[in-house]
Amino acid sequence: MGILVVGSVAFDSVETPFGRVENVLGGSATYFSTSASFFTDVSLVAVVGEDFPQEHVEFLNSRNIDLRGLAREGGKTFHWKGKYGYDLNEAQTLETHLNVFESFRPQIPAAYRDAEFLFLANIDPELQMEVLSQVEKPRVIACDTMNFWISSKPEALKAVIAKVDIFIINEGEARQFTQEANLTKAARKILAMGVKTLVIKRGEYGVLMFTDHSVFAAPAFPLEDVFDPTGAGDTFAGGFMGYLANTGDTSETGIRQAIIFGSVMASFNVEDFSLNRLKRLEYREIEDRYRSFKALTHFEGLAGG
Amino acid sequence: MGILVVGSVAFDSVETPFGRVENVLGGSATYFSTSASFFTDVSLVAVVGEDFPQEHVEFLNSRNIDLRGLAREGGKTFHWKGKYGYDLNEAQTLETHLNVFESFRPQIPAAYRDAEFLFLANIDPELQMEVLSQVEKPRVIACDTMNFWISSKPEALKAVIAKVDIFIINEGEARQFTQEANLTKAARKILAMGVKTLVIKRGEYGVLMFTDHSVFAAPAFPLEDVFDPTGAGDTFAGGFMGYLANTGDTSETGIRQAIIFGSVMASFNVEDFSLNRLKRLEYREIEDRYRSFKALTHFEGLAGG
Repeated sequence: MGILVVGSVAFDSVETPFGRVENVLGGSATYFSTSASFFTDVSLVAVVGEDFPQEHVEFLNSRNIDLRGLAREGGKTFHWKGKYGYDLNEAQTLETHLNVFESFRPQIPAAYRDAEFLFLANIDPELQMEVLSQVEKPRVIACDTMNFWISSKPEALKAVIAKVDIFIINEGEARQFTQEANLTKAARKILAMGVKTLVIKRGEYGVLMFTDHSVFAAPAFPLEDVFDPTGAGDTFAGGFMGYLANTGDTSETGIRQAIIFGSVMASFNVEDFSLNRLKRLEYREIEDRYRSFKALTHFEGLAGG
Repeated sequence: MGILVVGSVAFDSVETPFGRVENVLGGSATYFSTSASFFTDVSLVAVVGEDFPQEHVEFLNSRNIDLRGLAREGGKTFHWKGKYGYDLNEAQTLETHLNVFESFRPQIPAAYRDAEFLFLANIDPELQMEVLSQVEKPRVIACDTMNFWISSKPEALKAVIAKVDIFIINEGEARQFTQEANLTKAARKILAMGVKTLVIKRGEYGVLMFTDHSVFAAPAFPLEDVFDPTGAGDTFAGGFMGYLANTGDTSETGIRQAIIFGSVMASFNVEDFSLNRLKRLEYREIEDRYRSFKALTHFEGLAGG
């Protein structure tokens, strides 16, 4: 099946209570595609600057990620600098240098236009719409966003949402977007915008998925060592979409399993800086942790159903 | 089997974004015993003042709660006044009038001393210890506490914890008690104090249960109308202990089911002020919502286990 992702490839400088790193590989499309690559073929559309090292290109190649859509422009690569306190739930952005990302206009290579699964990572909703106009007819379209676009371009964002199947956002963003403190009511309002499946990320509290007829709650995996949450949301989305694309099963059952695979991938990613944990991850570990999620959440039903 | 609970019976005045009530029935032992009464026989030890109306006594009697341990002292009943903002996760205490509760010294009636299940609701840990010295040999002892005792009497609290089987606290309190930001590490530290089962309440995010050999995550039920969270924790504890006492099954399987029953009871309680929702609750609704919890959390395991 294969997935096309459009988003950012970046350098991150991150400080957590447990250490700091400078100019490491980051970006929404990077985390997403690396995570999804454990399940399916991924094609990436993003932009980097002249300073983007061959080492990172080789890593993405080693994950079998198709980089024909990775543009290289004159200038520097997008650089984000952030810091986390002990609670690790929210990053404090210290610096954002958009650099070549500022004038990013995604060009979808002809070979990608018949992608069956499309993920629009967090970029300007007007660019997300441009991407939609360049692809043929994906079977499943998912998109992410952030507080900045919710407050600056809510109408453009709503126009995108009306065209996607799956919308993935943070809990706080769902409340902000709908002006609704109650998350279940917020979810109903977002579903009413035309999205079929809404996935609300709650950081260390896991994920809630809403459809018109069901709700699914998945916890985050309780870890003793959460090292760096950067990229957890995109890693989640990569595992989620990657598994969906792998099986092609978009039934309620399939989507729930995909949410657990996404949660599994995110739980690994936070165990180290940058993509370091994913770089040394083996598929066997993914299945083991899926089973651990099952053990974590299982309880017996009532006799008689 | 039956349960003995020692805690408070109080008047609450509560303001939420959805309304306000004055001098309604509240208190930890009240919520706990009403909730547990749907599953088993409950005996209550608490104190009220001369102003405690017959109407409330009749309600507790109607739930078959044994009130021989409800002392009536000269003076006024404990009165708590609090307020919630839109997020509803944390109460702001406006006034606390301990009144007759200030000099509460729990006296366990002789008929209660062979209770098999004991719940020490949130009171001074020194009083919790006095209760322990008055009972014979309960099969299961659970206790709750609050930030005030964690900061003012940590050693007395640790002495109680070493004697109980199940310790139930809030997430923030677990972090405060252990000075540990990571909740899984905090849980390990508390288990090391001698408690067999640790239940960490996370408000709208549900519950995590830790033992030496397992972790269980249960979500809170996503509700469109959360009206008043007052008493949710004690209502949870009542359903949890009530179900345990009803079945006598303290295996991992039984405890996990009990946690879901506790979560079910708490989910009803927040739907109205005071005990209003529990007053009109029917057992059939409890089982229905248990099934809804199953549907909320279920996902398929991997083929081959």
